[in-house]
Amino acid sequence: MALSKKPVKGMKDVMPDEMRIRNYVMGLIRETYESYGFTQIETPCVENIENLTNKQGGENEKLIFKIMKRGDKLRVDEAKEENDLVDSGLRYDLTVPLARYYSNHANELSSPFKALQMGNVWRADQPQKGRFRQFMQCDIDILGEPSNLAEIELILAMTTILGKLSFKNFNIRINDRRMLKAMAAYAGFSEESYDSVFITLDKMDKIGKDGVKECLIEDGFDAAVVEKYMALFDGLETAEDGVAFLSDTLGDFLPVECKDNLFEIRESVNAAKSADFTLLFDPTLVRGMSYYTGTIFEVELKEFHSSCGGGGRYDQMIGKFTGQNTPACGFSIGFERIITILMDNGFQVPSEGNKIAYLLEKGLPSNKVSQVFAEAEEMRRAGNQVLLVRMNKNKKFQKEQLANNGYTEFKEFFKD
Amino acid sequence: MALSKKPVKGMKDVMPDEMRIRNYVMGLIRETYESYGFTQIETPCVENIENLTNKQGGENEKLIFKIMKRGDKLRVDEAKEENDLVDSGLRYDLTVPLARYYSNHANELSSPFKALQMGNVWRADQPQKGRFRQFMQCDIDILGEPSNLAEIELILAMTTILGKLSFKNFNIRINDRRMLKAMAAYAGFSEESYDSVFITLDKMDKIGKDGVKECLIEDGFDAAVVEKYMALFDGLETAEDGVAFLSDTLGDFLPVECKDNLFEIRESVNAAKSADFTLLFDPTLVRGMSYYTGTIFEVELKEFHSSCGGGGRYDQMIGKFTGQNTPACGFSIGFERIITILMDNGFQVPSEGNKIAYLLEKGLPSNKVSQVFAEAEEMRRAGNQVLLVRMNKNKKFQKEQLANNGYTEFKEFFKD
Repeated sequence: MALSKKPVKGMKDVMPDEMRIRNYVMGLIRETYESYGFTQIETPCVENIENLTNKQGGENEKLIFKIMKRGDKLRVDEAKEENDLVDSGLRYDLTVPLARYYSNHANELSSPFKALQMGNVWRADQPQKGRFRQFMQCDIDILGEPSNLAEIELILAMTTILGKLSFKNFNIRINDRRMLKAMAAYAGFSEESYDSVFITLDKMDKIGKDGVKECLIEDGFDAAVVEKYMALFDGLETAEDGVAFLSDTLGDFLPVECKDNLFEIRESVNAAKSADFTLLFDPTLVRGMSYYTGTIFEVELKEFHSSCGGGGRYDQMIGKFTGQNTPACGFSIGFERIITILMDNGFQVPSEGNKIAYLLEKGLPSNKVSQVFAEAEEMRRAGNQVLLVRMNKNKKFQKEQLANNGYTEFKEFFKD
Repeated sequence: MALSKKPVKGMKDVMPDEMRIRNYVMGLIRETYESYGFTQIETPCVENIENLTNKQGGENEKLIFKIMKRGDKLRVDEAKEENDLVDSGLRYDLTVPLARYYSNHANELSSPFKALQMGNVWRADQPQKGRFRQFMQCDIDILGEPSNLAEIELILAMTTILGKLSFKNFNIRINDRRMLKAMAAYAGFSEESYDSVFITLDKMDKIGKDGVKECLIEDGFDAAVVEKYMALFDGLETAEDGVAFLSDTLGDFLPVECKDNLFEIRESVNAAKSADFTLLFDPTLVRGMSYYTGTIFEVELKEFHSSCGGGGRYDQMIGKFTGQNTPACGFSIGFERIITILMDNGFQVPSEGNKIAYLLEKGLPSNKVSQVFAEAEEMRRAGNQVLLVRMNKNKKFQKEQLANNGYTEFKEFFKD
């Protein structure tokens, strides 16, 4: 039977040009994160189904590629529902596997543990341009560090990579879940309504301040409360320093650690950063994942009008899995989006030595062939890329093709 | 709900020490193969189920991790059998996906196309020590090269990697399917019985010459035919040059191209090779996959009493998938086995610069913290790995732990 030639729906074949860029960026990410003391680990792409469907993954749990039981355990005729048929699935992120890994191996790992993970994840999303059902995630997480040393390291490490890739003039937007809560409490929202308020607030960049106000009123919140809430954002517009302004205004509603946290991160990041970016306090930054407990941040590249990575502190999550509280903070770089931007901009991977093509005429006697191979080996050991190919009848066209593939030197070997 | 802490059955978490070695070896493989003009590509880990179950994969097709249909397409109540429920599966090798990739993109690829693939594959085998259900394969394949330039390049490239990893004194065993057939034909076996004869011959290293003879007789083959067949192996024992001996003895049964092929490969490999190995003609080498059509080869490391990689020519396979005949030759390196050997031998990855730990006392004021971060950034830019950690109360123990993780320099920062 003939193969179906296309890859499965929503997944892609990586062509040589893209692969070269992917490899280069992966190497840069690994090398840079390692210089910050991160240690790479890997988990299987397949996870037990219970681990993927325990409500930590939110919407992603609806998008799992599920794997069928095998052998005697598979009973198609007795199965009543999907769950009777599956025992595992493809991971939809790297955070759940990290929590499992850490709970399985904490005794063998350094503390704090600075993990680097680079691996594919799968989500059965509706495919769109630039969004695939298999994609690479690159996460760094610091487990066991309660202080903002973690946040500062994550931001410095991640922005250093963007700087090395020549991204300039970008923003790291930063906020703190405790700031979000303090603002809502100050205005008079009840704690149960925070999530709903934040979902609306998250739309500020799309619908503006007036839109947010309208939505909150529509949602039935008290007009005076909404008024007081929106006044904070009015005040922020003219405030010289947003954190200082909110700290003064919110008074006891804002834990002093939250204010210090944001000031300290800003001070250290600005003193140490090497890339050209602005750390921007953004009190409207929400980030969807409800497991965040403190600092949250997001990368905003000019080239891409959407988040290109982000993360934050999630001090409660690992404990839910392991039974032991472990402070944690992570940053996920938008690998696929960065590759897309680099490809769109015609990014060229720095050259790795000469590319030389040896063209061998047909009928070259075997003793000469062996000499050519020996010479090619010498050249390779000296750091060159050497391609050996049979000389085609249309040698001119052949050399043009090779030149398109980056071969700049040619050497020809004739039988006579 | 608590997570199950263990990885799924038969798959493994990769710990930092192993990961370091894996990354190093992967980098070496990529760099070396690229110096031979191979181009890395990637296909999705998931393939359409039809592509995985079209009988090209032999026994591996029984070991597929199958992925369930999703949404409306999944009809558990109407399903009669497994196939009604699945639409895809995890790839069990990289050859089937390569054939699909090539058929999908041949027009965009250079000719001949020298492909490098490094990726995970999955087989629901019974787990054993050192054998996992998810494992990495590293394949090089040359598509579109009919001559033994392909074989010579593959052998030189692959052995160069083993040499760089300090493997010495190993064997590349080589044979040709046409030699196997000529020997069987000469002895008088009928063509239909070749496969059965070769399965028995393949056991020679375990059961010896007498064992093979006994088995063939038991299988009901004519005693005179078996006698004549075994006489070839007797003759080989005293022959100075196996290929020459068989060429003389087999006469017209052996195509002259087959003899030339083996001689030419030997001549060029020996003239050009950089690693310390022997290219060994082995007329008992069979290799299981029935799709091989010409040269076959296998790596035999002293450290591992089993094949550690192999490959051969499969000129008929791509055409079966694409409808267009394409000569092809490939070599798969036994990545997981090599990693196992390196781990067992205490292999150390060459150091990548200094590893320095900065210990920060608790309560260090934020302006000092920011100075420490700035200093660390300087050191990182200069090529060092710098880890920032809070100073523990038991500093001595902390530094011992850090030393175990490779940190050789320490710098301490106190609040006063």
